[in-house]
Amino acid sequence: MADTVTISVDAMGGDHGPAVTVAGSAAALQRSPDLRFRFFGDQAVIGPALAAHAELARVSDVQHCDIAVDMAEKPSQALRRGRWKSGMWRTIEAVKKGEADIAVSAGNTGALMAMSRLCLRTMPGIDRPALAGIWPTLTGECIVLDLGASIGATASELVDYAILGGAMARALLLKDRPKVGLLNIGVEEVKGLEEVRDASKLLREANPPHLEYVGFIEGDDLGKGVVDVAVTEGFAGNIALKTAEGTARQIAEYLRQEMSRTLPARLGYLLARGAFATLREKLDPNRVNGAIMLGLNGIVIKSHGGAKVDGFCSALLRGHAMVKNGLVAKIRQDHAYMHPDAGTGADRADAVGAV
Amino acid sequence: MADTVTISVDAMGGDHGPAVTVAGSAAALQRSPDLRFRFFGDQAVIGPALAAHAELARVSDVQHCDIAVDMAEKPSQALRRGRWKSGMWRTIEAVKKGEADIAVSAGNTGALMAMSRLCLRTMPGIDRPALAGIWPTLTGECIVLDLGASIGATASELVDYAILGGAMARALLLKDRPKVGLLNIGVEEVKGLEEVRDASKLLREANPPHLEYVGFIEGDDLGKGVVDVAVTEGFAGNIALKTAEGTARQIAEYLRQEMSRTLPARLGYLLARGAFATLREKLDPNRVNGAIMLGLNGIVIKSHGGAKVDGFCSALLRGHAMVKNGLVAKIRQDHAYMHPDAGTGADRADAVGAV
Repeated sequence: MADTVTISVDAMGGDHGPAVTVAGSAAALQRSPDLRFRFFGDQAVIGPALAAHAELARVSDVQHCDIAVDMAEKPSQALRRGRWKSGMWRTIEAVKKGEADIAVSAGNTGALMAMSRLCLRTMPGIDRPALAGIWPTLTGECIVLDLGASIGATASELVDYAILGGAMARALLLKDRPKVGLLNIGVEEVKGLEEVRDASKLLREANPPHLEYVGFIEGDDLGKGVVDVAVTEGFAGNIALKTAEGTARQIAEYLRQEMSRTLPARLGYLLARGAFATLREKLDPNRVNGAIMLGLNGIVIKSHGGAKVDGFCSALLRGHAMVKNGLVAKIRQDHAYMHPDAGTGADRADAVGAV
Repeated sequence: MADTVTISVDAMGGDHGPAVTVAGSAAALQRSPDLRFRFFGDQAVIGPALAAHAELARVSDVQHCDIAVDMAEKPSQALRRGRWKSGMWRTIEAVKKGEADIAVSAGNTGALMAMSRLCLRTMPGIDRPALAGIWPTLTGECIVLDLGASIGATASELVDYAILGGAMARALLLKDRPKVGLLNIGVEEVKGLEEVRDASKLLREANPPHLEYVGFIEGDDLGKGVVDVAVTEGFAGNIALKTAEGTARQIAEYLRQEMSRTLPARLGYLLARGAFATLREKLDPNRVNGAIMLGLNGIVIKSHGGAKVDGFCSALLRGHAMVKNGLVAKIRQDHAYMHPDAGTGADRADAVGAV
């Protein structure tokens, strides 16, 4: 890796296209001047958007693509129409070709996952990639995965997620030995939890050097900050994420209603508006925008389709940090420890050494 | 059913035992004077607790049981030690014997589920019972099930949950034709969603007369009030519930921190304290205390182990309402429509008639 970090950007992706993707890149460049960009999409739209950002234009190149994946397309349709030639595909392919360090798209999630798997393939020894998100907690942030790349997970896949999430926590949250928990439910002796219990045993036995396995956690532990990484299968993970977002909006709406109902409440709101502004910022989904596809031969970030400039910028900056901190190497190292025979080119002894 | 509603109460269950279960019953009796109680547990503790509530004592009887299920016991241990003779078992058994209309316990969840299944058995045609909870929404309340009675669910089990939840919404939320949605994730074409998709087809085809199937919903729809009943398998359901509770506590903590950080914020808080009190009430878990085991030959309510007097009272009043509104008959009716051959003693034509 050079001293610069190159991000390939699916410029047409998301609800707003270049209005957000290009402007978000300009904002990210201001924060991290070592960024370089490759935009993929319609030159006729990207060009003018880029013209408004001279600094960004200087460190970017634009690759014209005729085909853009539609937000409503099914992954199979998107693949038929857009494999090899769509802006989304070529954004991912830039990582495969070594022309970019990381790919970012705000486009169709299903299509992005399908294309990423097909183009980048899973790392040796990893069966399925996972979608990891950043979860705000009372003490900072934690990483939750899988958020819906797959449904259900075997014990060994849950262990892979722990490794992937642990490496991400090292690269992004800068924890030397992140605390990892397995999401479980509090009811003992219910059939169907064997995978989760077996994964727990595997993690305890392996005792990987770069993560601290802390055992089972429940849904209400996520926001407390008791772990740096929470591991679960994708159906429950996706529902947990959406439920937390919905609950936050619901409470914000209760609060809005109550603070405008009476004159004293309205006055109180005015006096405390600084506090409410901070609260709003804490609950702003833009702050934690960006789900990361882990377990492929390259990193792809999915920005929320509706993200604004701030949110897209935040996803780019997370990507920048993960590249700078050697996320891919950290994943390889941790994975090699757990699977010394998986042909990752490192053995367990190597893997214990710091990257 | 007589004009009175008799509730059997596992008096020793929960973190506080009779201090909460007896006092909560006294509070419920004040609200619903047609209630009658059967307490099961240690006479030496229940007696004095009851002595403080003369009205309640007049409409209650106490059945002494030597054995109390411990909150930390595994279900299998609890069954070995407490089948037939523990207070928990006998509380459930009172429903089976027709000595009570409904059973309420704040005791060990796993043990309560195991004993309820064994004692009451599932209704004809229902494979597995479900645990249903009441979820506060922006427009009122909805019912979510399964919250962890089982892990995973076939399409036909999800349809059963829809029927059970629909009947509960009719009896408790007083909706003539409750809106029912299937909890799903927003990613198309992911393997493992077949059950949810198949359940959707089954519900559309059956078009049950007493519920309106509205299709898929996501986690962030739960709090919006777009459905009266949200159906999912137990692992995701339990995690969604706990995650929502955790998120609510997290935001309350953010709010507490922010409102005490500066002088203007503290003054604002004082002015708006009425609004904050209303908000606190809306977020009070006591208000929606009580998960309901559905699908057995009799209804069992699980109160939260840590519930205070208000919370236990709320669970009792929910039970009272469900008995008054003929929950069991409504379940039989809806179920008979979906499974005319299941031997519930009613055929589809009968089932369409109002209960």
